[in-house]
Amino acid sequence: MTTAEALVRHVVRPEFDIVRVHHVELLVPDLEASATFYVDLLGLVVTERTSDALYLRGWEEHHHHSLVLREAAEAGVGHVAFLVREDDDLDRLEVVLAARGDVTTWVDDERGQGRALRAQDSLGCPIEFFHSMDRVESQMQRFDLHRGAPVMRLDHVNFHVPRPEDAIPLWQELGFRCSEYISTEGPDERITGAWLHRKPNVHDVAFTAGRGPRLHHTGLWVAETVAVLRACDQLAAAGHSAAIERGPGRHGVSNAFFVYLRDPAGHRIELYTSDYYTGDPDQTPLRWSLDDPRCRTFWGTRAPDSWYEESSTLVGLDGKAVPIVDSTVDERSEIMV
Amino acid sequence: MTTAEALVRHVVRPEFDIVRVHHVELLVPDLEASATFYVDLLGLVVTERTSDALYLRGWEEHHHHSLVLREAAEAGVGHVAFLVREDDDLDRLEVVLAARGDVTTWVDDERGQGRALRAQDSLGCPIEFFHSMDRVESQMQRFDLHRGAPVMRLDHVNFHVPRPEDAIPLWQELGFRCSEYISTEGPDERITGAWLHRKPNVHDVAFTAGRGPRLHHTGLWVAETVAVLRACDQLAAAGHSAAIERGPGRHGVSNAFFVYLRDPAGHRIELYTSDYYTGDPDQTPLRWSLDDPRCRTFWGTRAPDSWYEESSTLVGLDGKAVPIVDSTVDERSEIMV
Amino acid sequence: MTTAEALVRHVVRPEFDIVRVHHVELLVPDLEASATFYVDLLGLVVTERTSDALYLRGWEEHHHHSLVLREAAEAGVGHVAFLVREDDDLDRLEVVLAARGDVTTWVDDERGQGRALRAQDSLGCPIEFFHSMDRVESQMQRFDLHRGAPVMRLDHVNFHVPRPEDAIPLWQELGFRCSEYISTEGPDERITGAWLHRKPNVHDVAFTAGRGPRLHHTGLWVAETVAVLRACDQLAAAGHSAAIERGPGRHGVSNAFFVYLRDPAGHRIELYTSDYYTGDPDQTPLRWSLDDPRCRTFWGTRAPDSWYEESSTLVGLDGKAVPIVDSTVDERSEIMV
Amino acid sequence: MTTAEALVRHVVRPEFDIVRVHHVELLVPDLEASATFYVDLLGLVVTERTSDALYLRGWEEHHHHSLVLREAAEAGVGHVAFLVREDDDLDRLEVVLAARGDVTTWVDDERGQGRALRAQDSLGCPIEFFHSMDRVESQMQRFDLHRGAPVMRLDHVNFHVPRPEDAIPLWQELGFRCSEYISTEGPDERITGAWLHRKPNVHDVAFTAGRGPRLHHTGLWVAETVAVLRACDQLAAAGHSAAIERGPGRHGVSNAFFVYLRDPAGHRIELYTSDYYTGDPDQTPLRWSLDDPRCRTFWGTRAPDSWYEESSTLVGLDGKAVPIVDSTVDERSEIMV
Repeated sequence: MTTAEALVRHVVRPEFDIVRVHHVELLVPDLEASATFYVDLLGLVVTERTSDALYLRGWEEHHHHSLVLREAAEAGVGHVAFLVREDDDLDRLEVVLAARGDVTTWVDDERGQGRALRAQDSLGCPIEFFHSMDRVESQMQRFDLHRGAPVMRLDHVNFHVPRPEDAIPLWQELGFRCSEYISTEGPDERITGAWLHRKPNVHDVAFTAGRGPRLHHTGLWVAETVAVLRACDQLAAAGHSAAIERGPGRHGVSNAFFVYLRDPAGHRIELYTSDYYTGDPDQTPLRWSLDDPRCRTFWGTRAPDSWYEESSTLVGLDGKAVPIVDSTVDERSEIMV
Repeated sequence: MTTAEALVRHVVRPEFDIVRVHHVELLVPDLEASATFYVDLLGLVVTERTSDALYLRGWEEHHHHSLVLREAAEAGVGHVAFLVREDDDLDRLEVVLAARGDVTTWVDDERGQGRALRAQDSLGCPIEFFHSMDRVESQMQRFDLHRGAPVMRLDHVNFHVPRPEDAIPLWQELGFRCSEYISTEGPDERITGAWLHRKPNVHDVAFTAGRGPRLHHTGLWVAETVAVLRACDQLAAAGHSAAIERGPGRHGVSNAFFVYLRDPAGHRIELYTSDYYTGDPDQTPLRWSLDDPRCRTFWGTRAPDSWYEESSTLVGLDGKAVPIVDSTVDERSEIMV
Repeated sequence: MTTAEALVRHVVRPEFDIVRVHHVELLVPDLEASATFYVDLLGLVVTERTSDALYLRGWEEHHHHSLVLREAAEAGVGHVAFLVREDDDLDRLEVVLAARGDVTTWVDDERGQGRALRAQDSLGCPIEFFHSMDRVESQMQRFDLHRGAPVMRLDHVNFHVPRPEDAIPLWQELGFRCSEYISTEGPDERITGAWLHRKPNVHDVAFTAGRGPRLHHTGLWVAETVAVLRACDQLAAAGHSAAIERGPGRHGVSNAFFVYLRDPAGHRIELYTSDYYTGDPDQTPLRWSLDDPRCRTFWGTRAPDSWYEESSTLVGLDGKAVPIVDSTVDERSEIMV
Repeated sequence: MTTAEALVRHVVRPEFDIVRVHHVELLVPDLEASATFYVDLLGLVVTERTSDALYLRGWEEHHHHSLVLREAAEAGVGHVAFLVREDDDLDRLEVVLAARGDVTTWVDDERGQGRALRAQDSLGCPIEFFHSMDRVESQMQRFDLHRGAPVMRLDHVNFHVPRPEDAIPLWQELGFRCSEYISTEGPDERITGAWLHRKPNVHDVAFTAGRGPRLHHTGLWVAETVAVLRACDQLAAAGHSAAIERGPGRHGVSNAFFVYLRDPAGHRIELYTSDYYTGDPDQTPLRWSLDDPRCRTFWGTRAPDSWYEESSTLVGLDGKAVPIVDSTVDERSEIMV
């Protein structure tokens, strides 16, 4: 077993139970433009609108929000939130996070939401844990009202980090397991991407090598492949073809059908569907070689440079942009070779 | 070669050139209810609205209308119109129709349309021939505005007639060719259905055995199978599941993927897609045995009785309901056996 | 809160952790005919063939089998197996099952599988719990080898039971939660169907009212709606249209797109896709009224009588057919009214 | 009306009737490799195999072949054939072609085919006209045997020519009409692409600006968008991801959903579906500006350079490669600007 393989296979069963990634707060300079993009074009449901924010959810979701668009001077990422099974899990998490030196603080004034533990881990990612949120009616079967793709639910987030090998154990300590990873060939095997999950599909959170920490993208689930195609058709028809950055296509990693879009603030959104079940206890991480042209797009299509280089700035618990550093490995196999 | 086969293989090349079936005028008692059904739920485009009529078209169509909904005391069918290649074709058609004893009359006050030759053939069907209509912009690529299925274009009509064998030669004289037919087994082979075309797909007009003459359904083209499914989901979500009469399913005849709906006036609409090319000069009619359970629904599913028994009343050139008589053969194989 | 609602909302957190329903053993009189159906037509992967059995799995599955076809004089169901998280869970389960009076026995000679706890609960269902099975390569991305639908993985089973209200608490004790249920209107509310899950989609096991206990169907996951349609096209083309019993269509309950098939032994198979995520701790059961025509097929289509009446005989731990009794409520709303 | 618009709007009604483009003969150095690609991976049906050639057809086609793969020392294009309505049309065509100076010759020994008029027009394209071919059974509804995409029928061919303005009138004289065209902005408007049809969809033959004359691609019809995606998945799974050159995507021109592939001999194949009806007599050419990023891929994706630069060598009636010259205009808007 290689060092990389040993690393990704590690399994921890902590005292608390993180259910899944739950919502993302995006800071956007032009709330109207973002509303058009997410509500009219991608088809998210508006739960609530305040003077400076929009609380959105997918058509099958039962909670107040899975995406918050908050008006701000600069585009950025406020936080990425995870749902825990019991309220006490938050206290148990606080102990563990504090013990490993993460900054933590409690927040209790979030719209439609109970108390939340905010944290910034040693990588710099602003994350949140919470247990309760207002329930709303699912709109899943209101097919007559569906707009856009439409988006069904939040599926995952993906961070750019300088060394994925540093991120993996931090999240394994929280109970996450690796489903797939990409690593380099040769004696100094480096991991260039790792997909980690709590809920039993390919990921709740992924870490790929790049200047960071930054948020590479937010993955939104759509019901099937044709929904991805329809989203592209509608974006182009509405004059937003420039928002389509990569795809549509089939992923090698995850097997999902996808397209990557850039919202009006520059944040990257993935429409994603049709990955697979990963919940069995003996599931082991699937390795992809960075040299396999199918690992990123199964059909061999190369991603554009912007997709490798650009990501969203994170805002730390101190309200300032989290400093970023260069990656220690290049995720582009073409450049490696 | 059987008598039936000889009948359906007959080819006539008349002096005029009928391009295709072009539009249908449906009389509806409640124009608002019909507008909701066709515009909001099926997704037709409104070209013009007058005090008593709605002129609709599919998203790819370039002409003023392919479906006219006209308010009337009773539900019925005003006429079914065919497009001819040259204006002179109309005069040539008049001669031929008059020679065979059809009633004809000229109409020149139709909305958005040039002069038209109305006729009622010996079967009693109110038909129209015309050459010119106002052109409008196709909305095919306005994916961002699409609603409902959406409907792309009118594809065909289907009449219920007591003896399909009588209808076939009447329409062959007009240049129509048979693509497929269903006939009974045994010595007294009877044709229970025939599909005739001018444009090179399976049909512009079909004749199936039933009390008639009546209009069995109007076939509207959608872009692909998932559009048929989406239409059903939307109808049901909007509280109109009772409008879904038969299907969705795959046809044996035509190979098309379909669903049959009933509009608020009781008219039957077929959403139809994915049949095949029939334009080669040596194309010969494909026979289906009435005993083959796959001829109607390839998957073997039986159509409900309403689908065999109910059809729309035709309104003759005299403005009165065209009298109907019983079929001379039963199209339901289950009943034959 | 009604009695029914209180019943379905009950949540138990037992000491053991059942991961999901995992495999089904079907007894079939003609192994060759069944092999054709499951392998050639539905597209399952053959892991191993013995003199009297076929061990099959879906294209994304990593375990030796999810469906066992075993040749037998009479069609029947050998057992339905559930995967547990830890080997010790089996011992903890034995204690709980014995305490409530279920018959249990250990089995250690199953092909490709570790020790298993067989049980027959008070309803009479022959179930199994196990922790380990040989791992095999997933064939998910061998698109070039895919046949049939193809089937991706086992999703759920559905039992016919005389009183669903009796089944629900038995399975809640095992940690299952109810996602959706159907109940009658009026003062004597009866539950006619309940969908229970461990993995976070709509169900691992459902109980619907009918003569029982019997196995109503085994649900197999396919990747998307068009795979369901393709399966029907292929079955019909191969001369098996009679195998298509109900659908394709959209479920009201679960929102899944489905078709029900009958295999050569009479066992019912559902091809199933596109339900939704149910893993949040505050998820509450969704109620459908039996009077809502959309609860079974969202499009309002009525299921055939065979679908309500016919099910597979269960074989008990004593090797004999489990006796069945009549249902205490009729699941067909049309008959209730 | 601009000069370009006047040119593309020109309509001629010749004495003969060309029905449609019918088949293509591709010269391939490695017949086995090509057979794997076209039969196993794309799913064409083999009608006949001779010592040096493979005669293939789509699943819905009734004729002996629509694609001939002929073993040859060098990759090339033998000829592109068009079907005419009557045998006499061939004689009428010979007169017209000879009158305009095209080289013509009669061929009467083609497999499964009647006499054929071969010609080489002033552009240098080796074309053929014929009226009769052996009929074979359509395999359209043998869904159980379908392989690959699968391919349903030949739809069109596309030539690279140095000046599309020269090709358009040559083909209008043969009765072809223009459905869509791309032209440059500004005073010296140049046509960079024109789509011409006889059968009523977007094209039988297209001419795009490039070094030529060469055959840019052969367009094969598949039943719907998911068939295009499935073809890509299967190619990649079988180790042929490098064959995927451009797409999948939605075309601006034609609205079709497509992917471009390169066969083992380097010939380019387009899988194509879902364009629209163009058969009405008042249909007028739709103009796209070369500056509109959506004209080629509606989603704005740029085609790779190879797609603009590489094409198949034509073999003239003299058996030699047809000389090619540089294009007089660059089709890539990005390079123009």
